[in-house]
Amino acid sequence: MTLKEVCKILKNKNNIEILTHSSPDGDTFGCGFALCLALQSMGKNARVVVEKLPSKFEFLTKGVKEQDFQGEFVVSVDIAALSLLGSNAEKYKDIIDLCIDHHGSNSIEIQDKYVDAQAAAACEIIYQIILELGVKITKEIANCLYTGISTDTGCFRFSNTTAQTHRIAADLMETGCDFEIINKNMFETKSKARVELEKNLYDTMEYFAEGKGAIICISLDMLERLNINNDDIEGIESIPRLIEGVVLGITMKEKEKNSYKISVRTNDGINASKFCEKFGGGGHTAAAGCKLSGEYETVKEKLIKSAEEFI
Amino acid sequence: MTLKEVCKILKNKNNIEILTHSSPDGDTFGCGFALCLALQSMGKNARVVVEKLPSKFEFLTKGVKEQDFQGEFVVSVDIAALSLLGSNAEKYKDIIDLCIDHHGSNSIEIQDKYVDAQAAAACEIIYQIILELGVKITKEIANCLYTGISTDTGCFRFSNTTAQTHRIAADLMETGCDFEIINKNMFETKSKARVELEKNLYDTMEYFAEGKGAIICISLDMLERLNINNDDIEGIESIPRLIEGVVLGITMKEKEKNSYKISVRTNDGINASKFCEKFGGGGHTAAAGCKLSGEYETVKEKLIKSAEEFI
Repeated sequence: MTLKEVCKILKNKNNIEILTHSSPDGDTFGCGFALCLALQSMGKNARVVVEKLPSKFEFLTKGVKEQDFQGEFVVSVDIAALSLLGSNAEKYKDIIDLCIDHHGSNSIEIQDKYVDAQAAAACEIIYQIILELGVKITKEIANCLYTGISTDTGCFRFSNTTAQTHRIAADLMETGCDFEIINKNMFETKSKARVELEKNLYDTMEYFAEGKGAIICISLDMLERLNINNDDIEGIESIPRLIEGVVLGITMKEKEKNSYKISVRTNDGINASKFCEKFGGGGHTAAAGCKLSGEYETVKEKLIKSAEEFI
Repeated sequence: MTLKEVCKILKNKNNIEILTHSSPDGDTFGCGFALCLALQSMGKNARVVVEKLPSKFEFLTKGVKEQDFQGEFVVSVDIAALSLLGSNAEKYKDIIDLCIDHHGSNSIEIQDKYVDAQAAAACEIIYQIILELGVKITKEIANCLYTGISTDTGCFRFSNTTAQTHRIAADLMETGCDFEIINKNMFETKSKARVELEKNLYDTMEYFAEGKGAIICISLDMLERLNINNDDIEGIESIPRLIEGVVLGITMKEKEKNSYKISVRTNDGINASKFCEKFGGGGHTAAAGCKLSGEYETVKEKLIKSAEEFI
């Protein structure tokens, strides 16, 4: 279906519920609250259905009216599969009327579905929908859309970023949106636990192959002792790979006693997948993984030895 | 003068030397090599005069021809003052013909001077000049301009970023420029020494005022032991302030035995300048500094005590 058709449907509906995905991110919330603000500004009843709203995203609800109504129409945003509805699955999995997403892999089987896999963020699609609906992009709406675009592109750094991404960002900037605060909160702020984790990870860091390789390890003990949650661990696999001169970075994650999930990240065309295949794993050229069992030192030496041969 | 006038001058000149500033950054090099590529593509002789070219910027010279000629016309790019010519000052300080810059504070006193303080990066100005010169923006030129824009805006995060910054980035993206590699090399890569420094800094980190304050210290011993250079220290003052919940972050830098440079960074409107005034220093609302002498522990306790009262 076309954007025009999506907008025609939305114009004709009222009492709209907007579904966001579980393990939520800036894009699903950005889509949800931006669309909600737009629909409410058209005089419609609308609400965003969230599983939970982490405090760092609360600012996105600014200007959203709490409206009491019986839902009549359900839209899912940035949700690639019904399994991502989390605790909302039971209530909503069979009653989604419209699906708006940017995941090429989208597996939600309904008639009214708009998927643009070229969009770096689903918020790029919502931006076009809001324009097509003839709604003015307020600073509040812009903050939501900018948050989705910035988080899904790593602040315009990831390969999914396009010229269109920057052109939309430019339009959002003109509303006076809070891009500086948003990026600081999304990218620069570290939890105290994360700081402790990095300190401990650096203590485990070992270089090999004349500094072309680096390895770190997260032990179960570390996670427990520092009381680390999943958000704190996000992206740690890239820590070794981002060190100057390192072309093959290994992260050992202890999953249970003497059992490790190995994440490998590479630079300069070193094939991470080929390396992991040696241990029955695989993945992409620059990011792959495998599993290994054994004593910490044994597993580590095994990885280092074969990485030295591989590089 | 206008951009048109700048371009008229450049069109009429040949054998052009382009000056970059000392302690060079992505913007001065981006301007220099982009302009050099453009002038050479017009059939002119041109070269970029650099004090030294750090390896991380070598990719900017791709496509630049080494030309042997006697300089006849000198252009300075992104240079706010003659003092920033470094070791090139003696030879060039009196013979600059054209000054192109984005620093409102520009103090170079010559007739032909184009300063646009609204430009987030001088590369935004060079972009417009190259278009006005009628030169096609190649991928190589785009890589130079993108590097300047991205580094001077902290990858579109700093307050100087504008809608125009994003629109120019969009045009550069369409040349297929290497934005992903550029941002990785400019922002994500850490030297091994920097990793060691952060590890040691985290060891000195202390929280106070129920976690609203954090303090770290760089000792002379640390710098020597880890053999840290200036690049490795860049931006460490912001480490304490970027921790979740911290509104006042203090960095103590030991300058000589028992003598400390204090850098204060704040969030949520806490006035860093007012805090530093207590110790005879000052600065901006969110970034200020002062000097203190005494034993490490004494200075630290003094700062913590008065910060606790201040928050």
